[in-house]
Amino acid sequence: MGNADIGLIGLAVMGENLVLNMEHKGFSVAVYNRTTSKVDTFIQGRGAGKNITGHHDLAGFAAALKRPRKAMIMVKAGQPVDDTIEQLLAVLEPGDIIIDGGNSNYLDTMRRTAYVESKGLLYIGTGVSGGEEGALTGPSIMPGGSPAAWPLVKPIFQAIAAKVDGGVPCCDWVGENGAGHFVKMVHNGIEYGDMQLICETYQLMKDMAGLSYDEMRDVFAEWNKGELDSYLIEITRDILGFKDTDGQPLAEKILDTAGQKGTGKWTGIAALEFGVPLTLIGEAVFSRCLSAAKDERVRAAKVFSGPTVQKPADVKGFISDLEKALFASKIVSYAQGYLLMREAAKEYKWNLNYGGIALMWRGGCIIRSAFLGKIKEAFDRKPDLENLLLDPFFTSVIEEAQGPWRRIAAAAAVNGIPAPALSSALAYFDGYRSARLPANLLQAQRDYFGAHTYERTDKPRGEFFHTNWTGRGGDTSASTYNV
Amino acid sequence: MGNADIGLIGLAVMGENLVLNMEHKGFSVAVYNRTTSKVDTFIQGRGAGKNITGHHDLAGFAAALKRPRKAMIMVKAGQPVDDTIEQLLAVLEPGDIIIDGGNSNYLDTMRRTAYVESKGLLYIGTGVSGGEEGALTGPSIMPGGSPAAWPLVKPIFQAIAAKVDGGVPCCDWVGENGAGHFVKMVHNGIEYGDMQLICETYQLMKDMAGLSYDEMRDVFAEWNKGELDSYLIEITRDILGFKDTDGQPLAEKILDTAGQKGTGKWTGIAALEFGVPLTLIGEAVFSRCLSAAKDERVRAAKVFSGPTVQKPADVKGFISDLEKALFASKIVSYAQGYLLMREAAKEYKWNLNYGGIALMWRGGCIIRSAFLGKIKEAFDRKPDLENLLLDPFFTSVIEEAQGPWRRIAAAAAVNGIPAPALSSALAYFDGYRSARLPANLLQAQRDYFGAHTYERTDKPRGEFFHTNWTGRGGDTSASTYNV
Repeated sequence: MGNADIGLIGLAVMGENLVLNMEHKGFSVAVYNRTTSKVDTFIQGRGAGKNITGHHDLAGFAAALKRPRKAMIMVKAGQPVDDTIEQLLAVLEPGDIIIDGGNSNYLDTMRRTAYVESKGLLYIGTGVSGGEEGALTGPSIMPGGSPAAWPLVKPIFQAIAAKVDGGVPCCDWVGENGAGHFVKMVHNGIEYGDMQLICETYQLMKDMAGLSYDEMRDVFAEWNKGELDSYLIEITRDILGFKDTDGQPLAEKILDTAGQKGTGKWTGIAALEFGVPLTLIGEAVFSRCLSAAKDERVRAAKVFSGPTVQKPADVKGFISDLEKALFASKIVSYAQGYLLMREAAKEYKWNLNYGGIALMWRGGCIIRSAFLGKIKEAFDRKPDLENLLLDPFFTSVIEEAQGPWRRIAAAAAVNGIPAPALSSALAYFDGYRSARLPANLLQAQRDYFGAHTYERTDKPRGEFFHTNWTGRGGDTSASTYNV
Repeated sequence: MGNADIGLIGLAVMGENLVLNMEHKGFSVAVYNRTTSKVDTFIQGRGAGKNITGHHDLAGFAAALKRPRKAMIMVKAGQPVDDTIEQLLAVLEPGDIIIDGGNSNYLDTMRRTAYVESKGLLYIGTGVSGGEEGALTGPSIMPGGSPAAWPLVKPIFQAIAAKVDGGVPCCDWVGENGAGHFVKMVHNGIEYGDMQLICETYQLMKDMAGLSYDEMRDVFAEWNKGELDSYLIEITRDILGFKDTDGQPLAEKILDTAGQKGTGKWTGIAALEFGVPLTLIGEAVFSRCLSAAKDERVRAAKVFSGPTVQKPADVKGFISDLEKALFASKIVSYAQGYLLMREAAKEYKWNLNYGGIALMWRGGCIIRSAFLGKIKEAFDRKPDLENLLLDPFFTSVIEEAQGPWRRIAAAAAVNGIPAPALSSALAYFDGYRSARLPANLLQAQRDYFGAHTYERTDKPRGEFFHTNWTGRGGDTSASTYNV
């Protein structure tokens, strides 16, 4: 019987770095890779002289593990995960734990949890965020799956996770079956939104206020000292200040076509499935799609003229407005993301700890920020908070930001600078704070052409009426009935 | 052997009306319904004295049909369609045709086409639009499936379809397997967008310009005589003029919570899957979701104050701006919908006739409009038109509308009136006509935290570079490499 605390399958950089992180925290690790030469290279290289054993077959790998065995898979999401699970089931025993640490779709994780549990084993599907560096030095870890597995992996996961606030690990139990991967997916969607918002403020600074790269670097450096303090603002500062070999800003020479790996898309699809208005992340995903159509945009630019850009008279005031617009939009994005988690939790009966999720994202991952501490505080104040926007702190920030936010959205529209996420966030906010939206007309239209019926403001909910709208002629009364 | 030209299963109102339409055009029809009393009611009622035979079992139904048999299913989308197909396969023969005329998901239709063809029969999945009235008097029909089936059903489908331009039927072959239901789905998504745009202009007229219902009715009546001439503008005119029994506008008393039947959602999901920026329809779907959260909005309205609305000094000019903003946004929405069809056609190897699709939508269906004639003309001019926005007619409309459109989007933002679809359309347009978007910064961020690499504007496409961004210190050169 083996004595390794945990095993890891899949020695790409993320996998290797997690192994080194675990070993560094005092755990012994067994490793396996399908291309076995990678095992040898690792054991003789980065893993040399450490408490790590390499294995060329899964039987030996399993034999090296302490019971109940913990086998963590770090392979490409999709079929490779299913294949590896099958292979592991052949060498593991009831009570052992299979862990998927890749970017799996939560629906796959739900299916796999049920499947692995049906074989008498336990399953964990966990989000691991923070990229290669985070994996090595402390990622954000979001585990879900079989609740019985959590106490068994908790010491390892919390040891290797990022720490905030003097030692609190950015890792806690998320919930049953697919909850961990769902929360990781929303995290990635929010990351899409944050990045898009930063890009829009950058373009407005550059193309409307005419700031140089060094000036923009200074603005982001300043912002990083205030409420916007976050990893993405910090790296934007560094990127804008980075010079190419010729002394010119490198960012200016980078092609403006963004790629994506699919989790933003999944977040949008989940929002549509759950009927949650995730407008900002939706616009962020679509903005990447539009950026990819570079050649078509270049052709379109020759066809359409835009307005002449009016540089703001008060550039300092404009930058200050931008900061507030960015922050307010960011609050909307997180509020929408939290609503999506709430709806999914209802559907799948997950008991999500919303403050705990903010805490997990506080460190280790790409969206880490001071702001997430404010979200944690909001849920500490009111664990069943209906919407982040209704927390007193966020309400007051938004109230203060309203004027600047509106000025920026209007300036973008008038000057022809695309700000889809900033404007969409404002439109959502204005819709959200509208006791009355124009959907009454929409319901009338649906009743007119499809007899879909409608409810009335002067009748109780649940009573449905239909009108024979084509009975034309001024003030003829409608033939309404209760269906 | 029977001699009915076609059979129809499922006698809800849509099914009944299609049967009556077919019979009216000279075809003999056999009908069947699972609840057989519905058959008798229909044959003795609306179907009495007509060339229609009722059947209480599918064997008798099949025996009544001329070969190759044509059996059209009008049941609820989903499992009931699969069940009915199974039952039909037991009574039909190779060469016969099964037709699904419901609102099926195109992926189901792709699967069913392959399945039914594997049994030696032919399959058609067809969109039927126009609601109950359209089914009776002439719907828009969008058939796809087994190409060999088309010549056999064409005489019936084109006879019962709506006619435009002096007799051209709003029905033509769309393409293989799921093409017909895909095009119907995009039609429905566009319908969502059109309705949302009308709602936004209505709210701006009402809450910003302070128009009365009668004044708004007059505005829509005017618009219906111009470029916006369409069914939805026409019924909006009627709805706004419609008075309740107390003489007050009925629309004002309708609850502002919109329902949906799922096809808008499917369109958004398809857009995300295909990576097509369908921003306007996305915002329209999300707006319905937000409208449904009525109670939460009422609570939020008490928490947040909005800006004081500034009534426009020149109301006439404002209404004229609104008209142009609506038309420009509508063009963006259709352009996006056509891009989605183009991407799906590439993926599934459908040879879509884009002008023909516009023609099918010209009459019979909810989005019918004069505008669709302009789209038809655009594709007549250039069948491989890359983007509707690049057609000279639409380019000139958009150029003329730019100023008004920007003024409306800015006014909505400043005055706190949500106009998510109008503003999103403008942001998309500004992104589309941008040779340069800020995605260069986004790529730099992805390379910074995830080593995702980037391309350069001064190097050929397909060469990828990575920079060690954390080598901080002013103008230090980047260590770039070609991966």
